Amino acid sequence: MVRIGIDVGGTGIQVGVVNNDFQIIREESIPTRKDLPFEEQVREIAACVISAAESSGHTVSDIESVGIGIPGIASAKTGEVIKCTNMGWNHVPFRDVFCRYLDKPVFIDNDANVAALAESVAGVSAGSSSSVFITIGTGIGSGIIINGKIWSGAHHIGGELGHVIFDLDGVPCTCGNHGCLERYCSATALIRMAREAVRQQPETLMLRSVDNDPSRIEARTVIDAARADDPLAVSVYGHYIDCLAQAVASVVNLIDPEIIVLGGGVSKAGSFLLDPLTREYPKYVLFNDQPLPPVKLAVLGSEAGIVGAAMLS
Amino acid sequence: MVRIGIDVGGTGIQVGVVNNDFQIIREESIPTRKDLPFEEQVREIAACVISAAESSGHTVSDIESVGIGIPGIASAKTGEVIKCTNMGWNHVPFRDVFCRYLDKPVFIDNDANVAALAESVAGVSAGSSSSVFITIGTGIGSGIIINGKIWSGAHHIGGELGHVIFDLDGVPCTCGNHGCLERYCSATALIRMAREAVRQQPETLMLRSVDNDPSRIEARTVIDAARADDPLAVSVYGHYIDCLAQAVASVVNLIDPEIIVLGGGVSKAGSFLLDPLTREYPKYVLFNDQPLPPVKLAVLGSEAGIVGAAMLS
Repeated sequence: MVRIGIDVGGTGIQVGVVNNDFQIIREESIPTRKDLPFEEQVREIAACVISAAESSGHTVSDIESVGIGIPGIASAKTGEVIKCTNMGWNHVPFRDVFCRYLDKPVFIDNDANVAALAESVAGVSAGSSSSVFITIGTGIGSGIIINGKIWSGAHHIGGELGHVIFDLDGVPCTCGNHGCLERYCSATALIRMAREAVRQQPETLMLRSVDNDPSRIEARTVIDAARADDPLAVSVYGHYIDCLAQAVASVVNLIDPEIIVLGGGVSKAGSFLLDPLTREYPKYVLFNDQPLPPVKLAVLGSEAGIVGAAMLS
Repeated sequence: MVRIGIDVGGTGIQVGVVNNDFQIIREESIPTRKDLPFEEQVREIAACVISAAESSGHTVSDIESVGIGIPGIASAKTGEVIKCTNMGWNHVPFRDVFCRYLDKPVFIDNDANVAALAESVAGVSAGSSSSVFITIGTGIGSGIIINGKIWSGAHHIGGELGHVIFDLDGVPCTCGNHGCLERYCSATALIRMAREAVRQQPETLMLRSVDNDPSRIEARTVIDAARADDPLAVSVYGHYIDCLAQAVASVVNLIDPEIIVLGGGVSKAGSFLLDPLTREYPKYVLFNDQPLPPVKLAVLGSEAGIVGAAMLS
């Protein structure tokens, strides 16, 4: 038997055939087609699932279940997608329609939740019963696992750590509020901090490495310059780590998971991120004389979306 | 059969005999004696339990279980109290020692968690499977219920909403950090905001009602003056409600419980607190076009500590 994991992204939909060891044995994809009618979109996904299963040497009857992770919100219970902007979906009965084309148990959840589940079953947090997965990219995504299950909230709108208020009346957020956590902890935040700093103090490797064009500063620019001991980069990165440490500590003070997992672009900094964070975050934890959750890097990478979706049940 | 609920407070320890309808049929108390050796403290508590049970017309054999809520942290699994400053306890084997005096199933948890459980079983959130209980007093306490069970974290240090970072580098907190949520949302915060405001603008009912002595301003002073439409009090209270709204929205964005319950001194303002909060908080929620958790007032009051402790299992 195999399980199908589907990862809906901005430009493409990845369909993976996953074996019992949570390995992807076949992967196919179709473009994300927001322009198509809903039923047509679902029909195309189902066709891709059947094609991927058959190309992997299995038949449709070998498929145990189909799981899908979407960038949006969904009801795991009813199989309805409540909102998924990438696909243009708004309260659509995904499971019901999908089953018309392929009658299998169908499970659906948010993509950050699905990645959190993947790590907690087959990744770095395997064996833990609770974890919080934080993806540090353009924004901050997160997924909460409690007692081995995804906790996405009673109305499926939880797990949005990026939009917890972190700095009252602070930096404006894309969501319309001010001071959301992701304005201080995302890659975008690190870039903003660096661009503000170089305006005051242009003598820095950060600017030299991008031909003095501040608009070309990326998270990597700052991290590379900080690694090279550029004083301004060290200072900017230190401030960013301090923000992230307070965010991690807030998660511990409120949820206290067994382990905290970091993914996303900034996590590629590896131990240059993990070491100072692990050292700094306990000072913001209330009961910091107790055992605290370790902070670790996600290991499944881009496969987490497919593998986690296949794990949904 | 009856259950025993014990509520450890700063000055006294309340012991209640609770029937199957979660009603307290007998209550006795002993003073909190931090000066006694641990074994002696436990022996006194056990003696009070036996006395209360017998005074209620029951025998020791009628006691089904004993639950205790402490202002501190404890391991529900091992029965160890990890820290309880009021009693001077630090890693003490409460359950093991208690059972020497009264051999019953003994359960232990944090007092805010216990109150959250009480409300979720026999109070305002009865019938819900998830809730977050927030006590607004000198500080901010909180308890999280997920899938009908207390979630206090993997290391028993979660549920501390009051110490989530809410205003980066903000007001210093008693815990040593800056900008903790309770510095903006507790009764203490409301009082601070009022005292700062009257310094700038002394023409206010808030000052007149305390004989122009700012040190006598309490949460109630501000709320009463705001009810009486004193302009400065209305402005201070409006700012406080805005902070609380952002705190509630943060809880929804991250945890999204079925219901949010407010207790503690400030919650006595009733609908004068609840109505503006219910109106304001959705604007800070990311997916605020979805059904959102209602915010309600706790109904069990001071009994929640005993009743919730008796519910522990």
